Amino acid sequence: MPESEAGSRAAGNLQAVRNVKPLVHNITNYVVMNVTANALLAAGASPVMAHAVEEVEEMVSLAGALVLNIGTLSPAWIDAMLLAGRRANERGIPVILDPVGSGATSFRTETAKRILMDIKIGVVRGNASEVLSLISAESTTKGVDSVHGVDEAAETALRLAADLSTTLVITGAEDLVTDGNRILRVQNGHELMGRITGSGCMATALIGAFHAVDEDPVEASATALAFFGLAGERAAAESRGPGTFQASLLDALYGLTPSELEQGARIRTS
Amino acid sequence: MPESEAGSRAAGNLQAVRNVKPLVHNITNYVVMNVTANALLAAGASPVMAHAVEEVEEMVSLAGALVLNIGTLSPAWIDAMLLAGRRANERGIPVILDPVGSGATSFRTETAKRILMDIKIGVVRGNASEVLSLISAESTTKGVDSVHGVDEAAETALRLAADLSTTLVITGAEDLVTDGNRILRVQNGHELMGRITGSGCMATALIGAFHAVDEDPVEASATALAFFGLAGERAAAESRGPGTFQASLLDALYGLTPSELEQGARIRTS
Amino acid sequence: MPESEAGSRAAGNLQAVRNVKPLVHNITNYVVMNVTANALLAAGASPVMAHAVEEVEEMVSLAGALVLNIGTLSPAWIDAMLLAGRRANERGIPVILDPVGSGATSFRTETAKRILMDIKIGVVRGNASEVLSLISAESTTKGVDSVHGVDEAAETALRLAADLSTTLVITGAEDLVTDGNRILRVQNGHELMGRITGSGCMATALIGAFHAVDEDPVEASATALAFFGLAGERAAAESRGPGTFQASLLDALYGLTPSELEQGARIRTS
Repeated sequence: MPESEAGSRAAGNLQAVRNVKPLVHNITNYVVMNVTANALLAAGASPVMAHAVEEVEEMVSLAGALVLNIGTLSPAWIDAMLLAGRRANERGIPVILDPVGSGATSFRTETAKRILMDIKIGVVRGNASEVLSLISAESTTKGVDSVHGVDEAAETALRLAADLSTTLVITGAEDLVTDGNRILRVQNGHELMGRITGSGCMATALIGAFHAVDEDPVEASATALAFFGLAGERAAAESRGPGTFQASLLDALYGLTPSELEQGARIRTS
Repeated sequence: MPESEAGSRAAGNLQAVRNVKPLVHNITNYVVMNVTANALLAAGASPVMAHAVEEVEEMVSLAGALVLNIGTLSPAWIDAMLLAGRRANERGIPVILDPVGSGATSFRTETAKRILMDIKIGVVRGNASEVLSLISAESTTKGVDSVHGVDEAAETALRLAADLSTTLVITGAEDLVTDGNRILRVQNGHELMGRITGSGCMATALIGAFHAVDEDPVEASATALAFFGLAGERAAAESRGPGTFQASLLDALYGLTPSELEQGARIRTS
Repeated sequence: MPESEAGSRAAGNLQAVRNVKPLVHNITNYVVMNVTANALLAAGASPVMAHAVEEVEEMVSLAGALVLNIGTLSPAWIDAMLLAGRRANERGIPVILDPVGSGATSFRTETAKRILMDIKIGVVRGNASEVLSLISAESTTKGVDSVHGVDEAAETALRLAADLSTTLVITGAEDLVTDGNRILRVQNGHELMGRITGSGCMATALIGAFHAVDEDPVEASATALAFFGLAGERAAAESRGPGTFQASLLDALYGLTPSELEQGARIRTS
């Protein structure tokens, strides 16, 4: 996507989410369930949370995207994620993975890797340490300890995305999106987003909503992050701290127009 | 209840909730636990959440109402709902059911029907598709596909309430309350209530609080909905979107006086 | 701690939390997970929620404090609390217990007592009935029924703390902190804190954050409560009810400076 087209692609995707109101099925952690549902609703999508093995296959069949998030993980939830993920793969429904805390405990790291092995994942979104924890022992990708500087981080992400045959999204001060071939960088956002819980999880869920209306995982991810980041910028201008910011963030996700997003999106191809 | 008395009944119930501070025991879904507890606290009631089979019977025995909500359901929670519901029935404590997602998956539909079979439910509250999914194969009530227009929906709800021997509450642009005999319609509310997660679940919990102080399930439900809807109207006037609306909604549940509710309640008998 | 030093101790602890950003591992109830994480983030600490027996020992080993909260309890969570608590004890990581609902059901009361028996607990925080429910049959401490007036409550708490070899924190209009030897009273706070769910749980989590940077459980607790209470006072001044209060409380936890805390802390030694 040439830079000049990024803003209009973002605007088109936002309008499509509001028109289609895609159902986003989340199997996600307890901490962020409420804010994730509210972020999706505010943006115009339709959230549903369901994790029982008795119903996840039926529920995901109704959905436009499946979001798997491994925070507050326990074994029964992994079973549900695998069942729902396989059914989504069969139906061609995109699956997004948020490897919350991967790298912090071996239970989370191994679960993230197992999901990546068993399920075709369209997009993985995490912070740098979560995403780089997915490098396996056999990988030719260099580990996080050997990464120095932004350029080398991008190089590492590029190779890891190719190894994993997925699109990787590393969010931070600047977000990086790569499928092992293309790289997009998103420069929207505000530091207050790091002072509320669930901002990463909301970003992942919004990528799910955008991927439900845009088949290209790289463009869906970058445009969703530009939308979320721009909403964060607007919310910060109306806030006195993280509490009022959280409320204003939902207001901005609701109120931002496609043309405002087209003007405000800062997506770079290099 | 003649229309002229509806406002004063609502005012009396709100005052009673604030005086009695009824304990409302919720076995509810993860997404809305926090906002449900906050809505009950703001209104003046005392919320408690407990789902372990080891304690639900003891907990519900302390309560003025039991609210069962089948969102984010899993089998262990059904066991807890049935145990708590039976104990509530033995003690004459009213039980309210929110069949979240009934109709979307067979697990939810069957669970809702099983609870209705095993437990005497005072009030069922859902949207139209959730409530109409409760029609069983043997029912003489016409299914949702054959419902055309508002009058026929009311006719269907009336028969279904009679079939199920309960009070049905169908919330939407206008709320409908019927026990198979009487019909009340509540016209309070604001469209922003549909843009935050948990507004239906909060309505159900508030019906629980009002039913704890008003034995009549039809009047308890209609007055609770008028209160909740009027709070939504007031909150919308102070909000810039769904985030600030959520905060203002709790403020309004806390701040609305019985006399303001008496003036603002729009409950119709026809 | 002489009264004149309390304010500067509070200021020093707040600055230390913001510098060290201690990881606080919470095994807590579903209702308050989100607000607990947000309160810790706003204050400057790093929250993590994890409850799977597969990972709690590894997770707590990374933490500066472990917070155990028994609301929305179920048996699997007790196993996780005991595993994490033992590991924390081995590593010298302070453990804080919030016995939510102890006294309301025997399941909760027995669980709170079992945790106190098996794990060395640095601080227990609850309301008066929760804390006094921990008195065992063999205890020489007088039960709650025999407590009359503030002075006798303090006397009872003092003996119970000595019996249990822990620091007890009883929060209310005035907070009381005692290790069986010293007594501190904290007079910060606002009544709106009782109209939002999770204010007690947030207080407990903040005690965890302060205890991660201050080894003395009595001083860590009292200074954390002064900080939380002062934030509540500031938030109440900017609020129209419990909804806007909740947002403003997080803003105040984020915005209060150490010198403002030094001026505003009201900690008494008698």
